[in-house]
Amino acid sequence: SRSIRLAVIPGDGIGQEVVAQGLKVLGAALPQDVKLETKNYDLGARRWHATGETLTDAELESLKDHDAILLGAIGDPSVPSGVLERGLLLKLRFAFDHYVNLRPSKLFPNTATPLAGRPDIDFVVVREGTEGPYVGNGGSLRTGTPAEVATEVSLNTAYGVERVVRDAYERANSRPRKKLTLVHKNNVLVHAGHLWKNIFDKVGAEYPDVTTDYLHVDAATIFFVTQPERFDVIVTDNLFGDILTDLAAAVTGGIGLAASGNINPSGAFPSMFEPVHGSAPDIAGTGKADPTATILSVALLLQHLGYADEAARIEAAVAEDLAERDAARTTDEIGDALAARVSG
Amino acid sequence: SRSIRLAVIPGDGIGQEVVAQGLKVLGAALPQDVKLETKNYDLGARRWHATGETLTDAELESLKDHDAILLGAIGDPSVPSGVLERGLLLKLRFAFDHYVNLRPSKLFPNTATPLAGRPDIDFVVVREGTEGPYVGNGGSLRTGTPAEVATEVSLNTAYGVERVVRDAYERANSRPRKKLTLVHKNNVLVHAGHLWKNIFDKVGAEYPDVTTDYLHVDAATIFFVTQPERFDVIVTDNLFGDILTDLAAAVTGGIGLAASGNINPSGAFPSMFEPVHGSAPDIAGTGKADPTATILSVALLLQHLGYADEAARIEAAVAEDLAERDAARTTDEIGDALAARVSG
Ligand SMILES: CC(C)[C@H](C(=O)O)[C@@H](O)C(=O)O
Ligand SMILES: CC(C)[C@H](C(=O)O)[C@@H](O)C(=O)O
Repeated sequence: SRSIRLAVIPGDGIGQEVVAQGLKVLGAALPQDVKLETKNYDLGARRWHATGETLTDAELESLKDHDAILLGAIGDPSVPSGVLERGLLLKLRFAFDHYVNLRPSKLFPNTATPLAGRPDIDFVVVREGTEGPYVGNGGSLRTGTPAEVATEVSLNTAYGVERVVRDAYERANSRPRKKLTLVHKNNVLVHAGHLWKNIFDKVGAEYPDVTTDYLHVDAATIFFVTQPERFDVIVTDNLFGDILTDLAAAVTGGIGLAASGNINPSGAFPSMFEPVHGSAPDIAGTGKADPTATILSVALLLQHLGYADEAARIEAAVAEDLAERDAARTTDEIGDALAARVSG
Repeated sequence: SRSIRLAVIPGDGIGQEVVAQGLKVLGAALPQDVKLETKNYDLGARRWHATGETLTDAELESLKDHDAILLGAIGDPSVPSGVLERGLLLKLRFAFDHYVNLRPSKLFPNTATPLAGRPDIDFVVVREGTEGPYVGNGGSLRTGTPAEVATEVSLNTAYGVERVVRDAYERANSRPRKKLTLVHKNNVLVHAGHLWKNIFDKVGAEYPDVTTDYLHVDAATIFFVTQPERFDVIVTDNLFGDILTDLAAAVTGGIGLAASGNINPSGAFPSMFEPVHGSAPDIAGTGKADPTATILSVALLLQHLGYADEAARIEAAVAEDLAERDAARTTDEIGDALAARVSG
């Protein structure tokens, strides 16, 4: 019989609450014969305050021994900025070679968008996840003095860019509109930018059916608000992808609905699924957190593990639920409603 | 009698057309006793194709000998990406130490915004102009091969950050709402980010009346579309400022209205004023280019040179004109209408 070994990292703030609903819906969606084994990892701010640890080598080893990871949210104002982000979240993305950071954006019917005229939005951002300005390669000299100099190095390799660009072409090729847009800033960041653009063009020759486009990141933000329907698949670097996917979430109903997968397509390491939103300590414990982003991340997880029908059922349940949603429902009520739709 | 020695760089595409209107309105706005001397510089794509030059040392020297520079737009698809941007536009910003890249965003009455509900938008972005990822410090190894590695280095100094942060506090302190928001990504780019945040906090102690706030760049893009009225003055680095100001232009009526000043506050070098938009070769010669961004840049230029009343008259003329604007007017007609309002 089939089984899924799932590592669960609820993390901080609303992370705990939304992950509970994600697991509820996962349980409801899975076929009877699939055995779900979950293992909880106590990682995040509480743990760091208690022990000073962000993620031990032993934990990293143990996480490897799973089919996937479900993560809630990491971060708390009581922890210095960067400690948990670099020491835990990015450490996982880099250690497990999550080079495809997949972030779909879809404006569901009946959800609120700040955009007038409700454009038809349905695109997916393929954000590179293991290179670029996120590598942590930098430092500072004479720190804290008037003579301080601080650097951040963006590292980009043909190896790393080609594999993610290829993944994006594959995705574009399998979607009805078959359109791929590269976003970078190759008129200023000429070295990294030209590497991206050359590889984008080279790999494109293998996908004659895919229409391609290039936009500078600044211009891309304009189209996100004036003409988001022009996008189908977008491929971009780690930092631009970070920025664009928050903006994408904002225009498609808010960060409460934005799901993501940190994917290692080779399968050598477990992929990790998480809502795009943060730990939102201001609303933790109030029941106001929207678990939908986590539940849609569970759909991405199922898709990745080969349960395409179950993933589609969750997506459909979310669409139906949003169409009827009452703004006053709690985290728990939304989770219950979606679990009921998925199993019913 | 007073005089202004103005260097004019019309540049490419619609640059020529919008600069002509900017000069028209400048002439109309200036008091009779001010002598305006302009000198034209033939720089941009045409020149590069003809001579291979982007900006000679002699031209750079000669430009110094002016009170200000008015620039239209630089760039053409026929020139490899980066050649004119790095060799001309950024060269000027860096050589003339334009460390305050000032970009006001205001939603004028009656202009189109893609945002539903028409929020009240009136903020200014102080974008650092001489450091960060724009320094051009990077390279590539084994270029064009599958083993290529390309880097981009963001350089940040306490010297460079403190002066622009201080400028932003001064601006915030002189505005009614007295609010300053720092935008960075200090949970990932920890070295540069902590330098910015530490200096922001330190200088802030000297401005007790200014309310401060910090946002990660990804979160800032969300607020630009969901709650732009929360911003008053924003200070940020070169790259984040580039991205945010295009988004700001988009939500406040489009890139046709977005003005900017590249300012050297010390006065050691001439400051340079330019629309945020590019050369738009697709509409060059059609009369469709909106010269308003250039005309508002002329207002910033006058403000910088101490002609505050004249600058205010241009701003008022633009506001009145936009309130009555007929979408069908040409570049020239808009320039004429604004010149008439300003002189009348
Ligand atoms: C928390 C932070 C490190 C993270 C990122 O920048 O990648 C987040 O913003 C995201 O988009 O997942
Ligand atoms: C043309 C380009 C180099 C420039 C920049 O990135 O600064 C432009 O986008 C701007 O914002 O003025």
